[in-house]
Amino acid sequence: MSPNIVLIGAGNLATQLGSALKKAGFRIVQVYSRTRKSAEELALKLGCESTDSLGELARGAEVYLFSVKDDILESLLTQRSDWDSEALYLHTAGSMPMDVFRDKVQRYGVWYPLQTFSKYRTVDFAEIPCFIEGSSPEVLRQIRQLAQVLSTQVYEIDSAKRKHLHLAAVFACNFTNHLYAVAAEILQKQQIPFSVMLPLIEETVRKVGQLSPVQAQTGPALRYDRNVMNMQLELIKEHSDLQEIYRLLSVGIYKKNNNNDGKY
Amino acid sequence: MSPNIVLIGAGNLATQLGSALKKAGFRIVQVYSRTRKSAEELALKLGCESTDSLGELARGAEVYLFSVKDDILESLLTQRSDWDSEALYLHTAGSMPMDVFRDKVQRYGVWYPLQTFSKYRTVDFAEIPCFIEGSSPEVLRQIRQLAQVLSTQVYEIDSAKRKHLHLAAVFACNFTNHLYAVAAEILQKQQIPFSVMLPLIEETVRKVGQLSPVQAQTGPALRYDRNVMNMQLELIKEHSDLQEIYRLLSVGIYKKNNNNDGKY
Repeated sequence: MSPNIVLIGAGNLATQLGSALKKAGFRIVQVYSRTRKSAEELALKLGCESTDSLGELARGAEVYLFSVKDDILESLLTQRSDWDSEALYLHTAGSMPMDVFRDKVQRYGVWYPLQTFSKYRTVDFAEIPCFIEGSSPEVLRQIRQLAQVLSTQVYEIDSAKRKHLHLAAVFACNFTNHLYAVAAEILQKQQIPFSVMLPLIEETVRKVGQLSPVQAQTGPALRYDRNVMNMQLELIKEHSDLQEIYRLLSVGIYKKNNNNDGKY
Repeated sequence: MSPNIVLIGAGNLATQLGSALKKAGFRIVQVYSRTRKSAEELALKLGCESTDSLGELARGAEVYLFSVKDDILESLLTQRSDWDSEALYLHTAGSMPMDVFRDKVQRYGVWYPLQTFSKYRTVDFAEIPCFIEGSSPEVLRQIRQLAQVLSTQVYEIDSAKRKHLHLAAVFACNFTNHLYAVAAEILQKQQIPFSVMLPLIEETVRKVGQLSPVQAQTGPALRYDRNVMNMQLELIKEHSDLQEIYRLLSVGIYKKNNNNDGKY
């Protein structure tokens, strides 16, 4: 039988994970958020109760699933002293060690789905690599069973390694998305629609599915084409932060492809 | 009837463009490269002559297509004084103005395919946005006809705007690919295969097909989650360049999403 779940947090990840769990047949009994409106909005979507008070947290659920900002997680755990000792406590954060739960609850672990979540964009959980960790072999088995209902890719990983995984994700997703935003702004000033950039962006990604990123690298910095690089720096001369990003990434590209100093 | 074409350059772009032109029924008559081996290799692929001497360049072709490093283009054009006045001279460079041809040849223009090309990876030209410019309306028509044989997306753009387009492409493709390389190295040190990152990278791209990059942004820098950011900076403390990239991109993300100062 699918366990009853309480969701703690109502942000992007909680929204997507809650929806996927509900779709998979789990019963979400309650959503907690410090922001009443967020809790209500997600609870409405999931057809369950909501609360913005820790004291009103539903008792007797099998799983309490925390998807909140890292510093909030610690404070929530300490604000309450009578956590149910039978339940399973999970968080979904990349950089928070599993031990945040230690001495506060009995049975705990981590379920980290490696993906970028937005509130209004549904993702297919089946394709999301999930990284799990448990406070005991028995707990780990339970987490694995839970995660495998949603995803075909479930891997065990410890907290130390998960931190590096999260760091890599920040570079490969959050930072690349910001570079798309920079590109979009450059184009907007020239009245060129961002959509013309999509085939290039898509091919850049397809390449690293087949080649290593180092093999896939192209562009002026790889050739160290000073003419082009100086001219491009000139185009952004009024934006010193952007120039600095341009310089650092260009030097990084050149080094990584031309000698051992390129190793970070 | 399809015109005869001489390819000047034998790099990634010349290789892919030459192959696509041949497949579309054009006759490539010769490949020139300063490097004999490169010229021979591409000529073998295209079933045509090769040369590493400008003096041996085939005469009487309808199109001379330059795909070489920007500084090479200028020097090639000045090294020879008897360019055929009937032919069409094209370059494929994002940041080189069309006027590089002025006073050297009569009929000239630009055919800039916005894509990342590697020698051993075939791309579908039909999907590549191509940006063209011509020295006269008649020349522009001829270039458009040529480009439209390969691509369904052909746009006219002047040299000034094309520079910005190229700059945007460097951010959206070359720099993002380098961030993939950084992520791959972080993972490699933890014995985690880069492939676990692919669903995340692919979703990051799918998102900007539907949302603006600013709307699609996620991650610690967006929330300005100092705990996570400081911990991640600590993980790369031995790599000051990488720390600086991390800081600049994080500040950029935060500013762009929280106030007007984020505009570059």
